Amino acid sequence: VGNARGRLSGAAAGAALYTGGVTERLIALDWGTSNLRGYLLGGGGRVLATRAAAGGVMAVQDGAFAAALRALCDGWPAGLPLIASGMVGSRQGWREAPYLACPAAPAAAAARLTAVPFEGGVLHIVPGVRYDAADGRADVMRGEETQLWGAALAAGDCCVLPGTHSKWAWIGAGGTIERFATWMTGELYAVLREHSILGRLFEPGPPAPAAFEQGVRLGLAEGAALPHALFSVRTAGLTGALPGSALADHLSGILIGAEVGGALRAGRPARVTLLGEGALCERYAAALALAGVAATAAPADATARGLWRIAVAARLVEEGSE
Amino acid sequence: VGNARGRLSGAAAGAALYTGGVTERLIALDWGTSNLRGYLLGGGGRVLATRAAAGGVMAVQDGAFAAALRALCDGWPAGLPLIASGMVGSRQGWREAPYLACPAAPAAAAARLTAVPFEGGVLHIVPGVRYDAADGRADVMRGEETQLWGAALAAGDCCVLPGTHSKWAWIGAGGTIERFATWMTGELYAVLREHSILGRLFEPGPPAPAAFEQGVRLGLAEGAALPHALFSVRTAGLTGALPGSALADHLSGILIGAEVGGALRAGRPARVTLLGEGALCERYAAALALAGVAATAAPADATARGLWRIAVAARLVEEGSE
Repeated sequence: VGNARGRLSGAAAGAALYTGGVTERLIALDWGTSNLRGYLLGGGGRVLATRAAAGGVMAVQDGAFAAALRALCDGWPAGLPLIASGMVGSRQGWREAPYLACPAAPAAAAARLTAVPFEGGVLHIVPGVRYDAADGRADVMRGEETQLWGAALAAGDCCVLPGTHSKWAWIGAGGTIERFATWMTGELYAVLREHSILGRLFEPGPPAPAAFEQGVRLGLAEGAALPHALFSVRTAGLTGALPGSALADHLSGILIGAEVGGALRAGRPARVTLLGEGALCERYAAALALAGVAATAAPADATARGLWRIAVAARLVEEGSE
Repeated sequence: VGNARGRLSGAAAGAALYTGGVTERLIALDWGTSNLRGYLLGGGGRVLATRAAAGGVMAVQDGAFAAALRALCDGWPAGLPLIASGMVGSRQGWREAPYLACPAAPAAAAARLTAVPFEGGVLHIVPGVRYDAADGRADVMRGEETQLWGAALAAGDCCVLPGTHSKWAWIGAGGTIERFATWMTGELYAVLREHSILGRLFEPGPPAPAAFEQGVRLGLAEGAALPHALFSVRTAGLTGALPGSALADHLSGILIGAEVGGALRAGRPARVTLLGEGALCERYAAALALAGVAATAAPADATARGLWRIAVAARLVEEGSE
C-alpha cells in the first residue's frame, strides 16, 4: 500500500500532517457559503489530510471557482476524482445541481451527480435535497444531506444539525432522509445581535449558563409568542434583571428553546443525534435535556464519510480498505 | 378668544396652515427614537398646528436636545408650557423619566412628570409605563401610554399599536393601562428584510395581498414554529412558489400572523382597537379578520389628546373649550 503521488504543503489553514506512503483515492469537498474544506481520502475513505480556505461561495469573485479549487488542492496528487457537496451546487454556486426529492437515499444522489468539467479535472456535485410537505410548502438543504448520509444513522433516528439554518431530519432504512425541517435559529440570533435593538445592551463577559437556561425555559414555554419573548432580552437588560454580559446567552437560549419546543411539537423522538460544531451542539443538548429528550453526538467527519459513500455508490472510487 | 402671540413659519415639514386669532395654550411633543413631532394646542386641546422634524433621540448629537426643541418651536409663542412623551425620557434621551407601574392611570402620570429646565423654559416629560408579569418578566413602553390615554378607550378594551415594537394593551376603568405586551414584529421584519438571507430574493413590485394572506394563515397556524415558518419565505422564492415581488408581503404576513395568533392565545378580545399608521393598521385588521376578531381604528391625534389630558391633570393648562 504505497505510491505517494504527491507532497502536501502545510501552507493552507488546517492542513494535517501527511507524509505520503498511502494510496490517495479521492478529493472530497465541503463547499459552503462561507468556507471551503477539502479532504484527501485514502482507501476505505480514510482521511489522509484536510485543508480549509475562506473560499466559500460568497467569497469567490467573478465565478472563479476553478481557481479556488486548484488553489485548495495545490500539491495534492493530480488526477484524483473530485466530489463536492454544499452551496457550490446552488444557483449562486459554480453550477446549479437539481434537488433530489424526499425520501432521498445516498444511491439516488450518486445517480444524480452534476459533472462540471474544468481545467484540472471534473468536479462531481452532490444534489441538494428537497422535502415537499403535505401543505404544499417546500424545504431545502445543500450539504447537510451528505453529512446525514455520512453519520451512520439508523432507521427511525432523528438527527439535528445546529447552525445558521439548523435542520431536523428524520431517517428511514438505509440512511434515507424521509423528511426534514429548517429552522433559521442561528441567523435570527446573528441578525438580532448585530442589527436589532437587543444587541445594543450586550456586553462582553464570561459564559452565562443560568441566563441561557432561563432563556431556554422561556423559549420552550412561549415559543408561540416568540416575537414577544424576544423583547424580554431588552427588558431584562433595561431593568437590570440580567447583566449586559448575560444577554447574548439569554437570547441564544430563547431562540434554541423555541426551536426545540416547536420541533418536538411536530414529532417527539426518544433521543436525538446531534451533528455539528461542539460548543453549539452542547447548547442544543442542554436545551433538549430541559425538554426531556436525550442527545448523543454523531461521529466527526460526517461530511467526508458521506462524500466517500456517495463516491463509492457512483463508482468514482472502489470501496474497500487500503 | 384671541390674542395670537406669534406667527407660524411654514418652513418645518408638516406645518399646518395657521393664521393666529386663537389662544395657544400648550406645546405638546411626541419625541421618539426617529422622529420629533410638535403640536401647538389651543383651548380644549384643539390642534392649531403640527410640525415634524428628523430630530428623534437617535439624531440628536452630543445631547443637544434643547437646541432641537428650540428649532422645532421656532416662531411659536414663547412662554407656553411644554410637555413630551416618548423615548426622550429614556436612558438614551434627554433625561431618564422613571417608569410608572401598571395599572397605570393618566392622573398618576400627571403626578410623576419629570421637569427638565432649559434655556427657553421647562420641558415636562411623561413617565413610561412598566408591567411586571406574574412570571417575573417586565415589559416597558414609552410614548404608547400617552397614545392609549388619548384614544378615549373604554374599560375592557384591547388596543393594538402596530409598529417597530407593537403593543397589545388591556384597558381598565378611566383609561387605566392594566397590562400590556410588546411584540418585536416590526423590527424582526426590518432586520430580516435588510440583513438576512430572506431579503436577498425580494424584488420590487405591486402589493401582493394574496401572498400576505397566505403568510398570515401560516403565521396563525404555525406561530409556535416561527423560525421554521420564516424559512418558507426563502423556499417559496427558490422554488418559484411565489414571485420575488411577493416575498416581502409574505414575510410581513407570517410575522403579523404569528403575533396575532400568539397574542390571542394569551387573551381573546371580542374586538380590537387599532392605533397607528393607516397602511400598517390595515394589515393588522386583515390578519385579525382572518383570526376571527373585528378591528376598529382609533381616532387620529391620540398622542396630542393624551398629552393634553395629562397636562390638564398636571395643571399645566386649564381644561375647557376656547
